[in-house]
Amino acid sequence: MDQQQLFVKIGLTSWNTQIVRAEKVFNAFTDKQFYAEIAPGKNRIIYLYGHLAAYHDALKETLGLGKASRPELFEIFLKNADNKNVEYPSLTELKNFWQSIHAELNELFVNLPATEWFKRHNAMTDEDFENDPSRNRLSVLLSRANHIAYHIGQVNLVKPVLA
Amino acid sequence: MDQQQLFVKIGLTSWNTQIVRAEKVFNAFTDKQFYAEIAPGKNRIIYLYGHLAAYHDALKETLGLGKASRPELFEIFLKNADNKNVEYPSLTELKNFWQSIHAELNELFVNLPATEWFKRHNAMTDEDFENDPSRNRLSVLLSRANHIAYHIGQVNLVKPVLA
Repeated sequence: MDQQQLFVKIGLTSWNTQIVRAEKVFNAFTDKQFYAEIAPGKNRIIYLYGHLAAYHDALKETLGLGKASRPELFEIFLKNADNKNVEYPSLTELKNFWQSIHAELNELFVNLPATEWFKRHNAMTDEDFENDPSRNRLSVLLSRANHIAYHIGQVNLVKPVLA
Repeated sequence: MDQQQLFVKIGLTSWNTQIVRAEKVFNAFTDKQFYAEIAPGKNRIIYLYGHLAAYHDALKETLGLGKASRPELFEIFLKNADNKNVEYPSLTELKNFWQSIHAELNELFVNLPATEWFKRHNAMTDEDFENDPSRNRLSVLLSRANHIAYHIGQVNLVKPVLA
């Protein structure tokens, strides 16, 4: 394993650890609990679930690795806060979306050569990248891993009940 | 900048981003608000503040870079959950502790040669490390960055009021 491969492994471990943890936390809830708020007046669990899935759908484009599968979901899950007056996709649909997005990302990630992770992502210009080569695909991945952890901390405030 | 230095820069950026964010979030609270719960029946802000500071104090030892400054705080902030019947250090004392721990870590981190970040940390054996060299000091740092994000997500549920 060369140095780049080693660092990619460290970055992917950070990401995968958070994904596995998120799935464990979300999957412990009953369908009904997905509609509970994480705290009084705060986001519902289902919103954060859709928010993470949509953000990771968008991640394909940020990384320049593919097109978003469901960009129409960005409106409700990325551009807006939770809103009980908006009709959300069903939980079954969101669970399928989550599963398919993360399977697709996993496939893209394991097949991406290490050198590719050190190239710039689509949210910055060539000139910016030349000034700061640490702002590459891998740094985006680490930032997304932190973002998952941020929301797991919130979702974990709700204690799952046995179905 | 060689590859190792680049990786270290990416890792330190991930850590520093979370520390800066945490300080901004905590410092927006009045002294009184530090004693508010993040949600009904959940940890108080002051507990999470002490928890992060104590965990980062312990981080020096995990990384093999120094001794913990206040190991006596591990009992209340790491080994136990928040407990209103336990007397905590004053907020002033905790703020000084936070400041000194993070100044010390920053000093250690900026002076650590890049090659040192790729050595094993103290929580694993030489044999384990030989089997998986990705479990090094840098991977510990990334894991701690995720841990900060996890708790910021919770503390952010409390809206700061103007003093």
